[in-house]
Amino acid sequence: MLYIIGLGLSDEKDITLKGLEAIKASERVYLESYTSILPHVSCESLSRFYEKDVIIADREVVESNSDEILRNAGSVNVSFLVVGDPFGATTHTDLVIRAREMNIPVEIIHNASILNVIGACGLQLYNFGQTVSLPFFTETWKPDSWYVRISENRKIGLHTLVLLDIKVKEQSLENLARARKIYEEPRYMTVSQAANQMLEIEDLRNEKVYSPDTMAIGVSRIGSRDQKIVYAALKELAQADIGPPLHSIVLPGSRCHEMEIQYLEAYRQH
Amino acid sequence: MLYIIGLGLSDEKDITLKGLEAIKASERVYLESYTSILPHVSCESLSRFYEKDVIIADREVVESNSDEILRNAGSVNVSFLVVGDPFGATTHTDLVIRAREMNIPVEIIHNASILNVIGACGLQLYNFGQTVSLPFFTETWKPDSWYVRISENRKIGLHTLVLLDIKVKEQSLENLARARKIYEEPRYMTVSQAANQMLEIEDLRNEKVYSPDTMAIGVSRIGSRDQKIVYAALKELAQADIGPPLHSIVLPGSRCHEMEIQYLEAYRQH
Repeated sequence: MLYIIGLGLSDEKDITLKGLEAIKASERVYLESYTSILPHVSCESLSRFYEKDVIIADREVVESNSDEILRNAGSVNVSFLVVGDPFGATTHTDLVIRAREMNIPVEIIHNASILNVIGACGLQLYNFGQTVSLPFFTETWKPDSWYVRISENRKIGLHTLVLLDIKVKEQSLENLARARKIYEEPRYMTVSQAANQMLEIEDLRNEKVYSPDTMAIGVSRIGSRDQKIVYAALKELAQADIGPPLHSIVLPGSRCHEMEIQYLEAYRQH
Repeated sequence: MLYIIGLGLSDEKDITLKGLEAIKASERVYLESYTSILPHVSCESLSRFYEKDVIIADREVVESNSDEILRNAGSVNVSFLVVGDPFGATTHTDLVIRAREMNIPVEIIHNASILNVIGACGLQLYNFGQTVSLPFFTETWKPDSWYVRISENRKIGLHTLVLLDIKVKEQSLENLARARKIYEEPRYMTVSQAANQMLEIEDLRNEKVYSPDTMAIGVSRIGSRDQKIVYAALKELAQADIGPPLHSIVLPGSRCHEMEIQYLEAYRQH
């Protein structure tokens, strides 16, 4: 059996009883490590907590070497751990499809993901439109398809969750060109960087999707006991420091209920 | 401390370790019982599992008598259990606001909700628009504001999650009028009832938002080991029986990736 197990968003105790039982019954345990992180726990401490070796599965392993993960999973149990929910912000449908082709039974053990935990800011999850992902800009590469999607949401009054890029185990262009397996330090986009990038694209495209005065919500480590939620204008978020990763932004839509505003006001920065 | 604890979607083992610890440390434990149900577990079995009395909190208790729930929660721990996530399909922001007013500390312990677990059907959660709720029609009352929202989603190619009504501890109009506390049997809308209501409104409004031939996904007990996922035309779902509650429908949008279709095909009804 292949178990794909969500870990939730904060620490080792966010796993479900069902998830922990599956890990205990597994011969091999992988931790998907390139689309998200648990802010309050390392791979080693997970390993101690489970009393099991935990194998780090980076993008290369999952995308190019999934046969190793699935090896003999028809006869023994293998657990594949994912921060958040297995079908949360990043889906692992490709791994499930591959397992199905090999006639390996799959069980998904769900957990909270950023897509529902973001409700902690007080906005109704009903009224969120599509979710967008904001990539790190470079000098020469400033993709902005997310701007169109935010615009679509805002035209019909919906909230938008903006997920921020993370770069883990990336090679520099030079090291990539020379096939040197030297990796850069991990980078996690902050709310401040994201707000600046968003304002830069509004400046360039000038379609009035939002402005520096648009009220937005910056969150960090949402779902953790030390989560931070800041309700402020984008120009203020562009200056804000809300601590260690992971960060996200929410742009509230115009279709805001009174109770949503009331709840948000508690997080207002003056 | 007031703990608001998500239970996930299936049985008693979907609770997180953190959630279970909070319950064990609580003097009173309430189970919110009017917006959703756990398909595989009763209140009594939860009570045995936790080794704690579990008090059923129906709509009346939560909405009119929240002071009883919050009583002395400044000095002892009280747990309020919610199927799914505390901020999932139904939010309990009003209870949090009330607790804040009384200076009671609140901790939210998250879990999976229908809003992320629906990713199990294979559609990317990124590409869902706003969520709609379909109420039971009566002879004289057929509200259709959800039709406009589905239309908004479909115009920009997004998927729509359609949540289906449940009626728990409702009084008949006659009993209500006579203030008799006699309650009807619980009712949970099926995929078949929902598809029929959706087609009825399309017939009436005729705005071509969808048709009897529109492919849709009917799900039941999603997140459970016996979940069922059926991919079929709405006119077929209108005839389908996919077993015990809870049911939901997804209308896929036009912006479907190849891998989403590939994943869905496994659930196709011929």
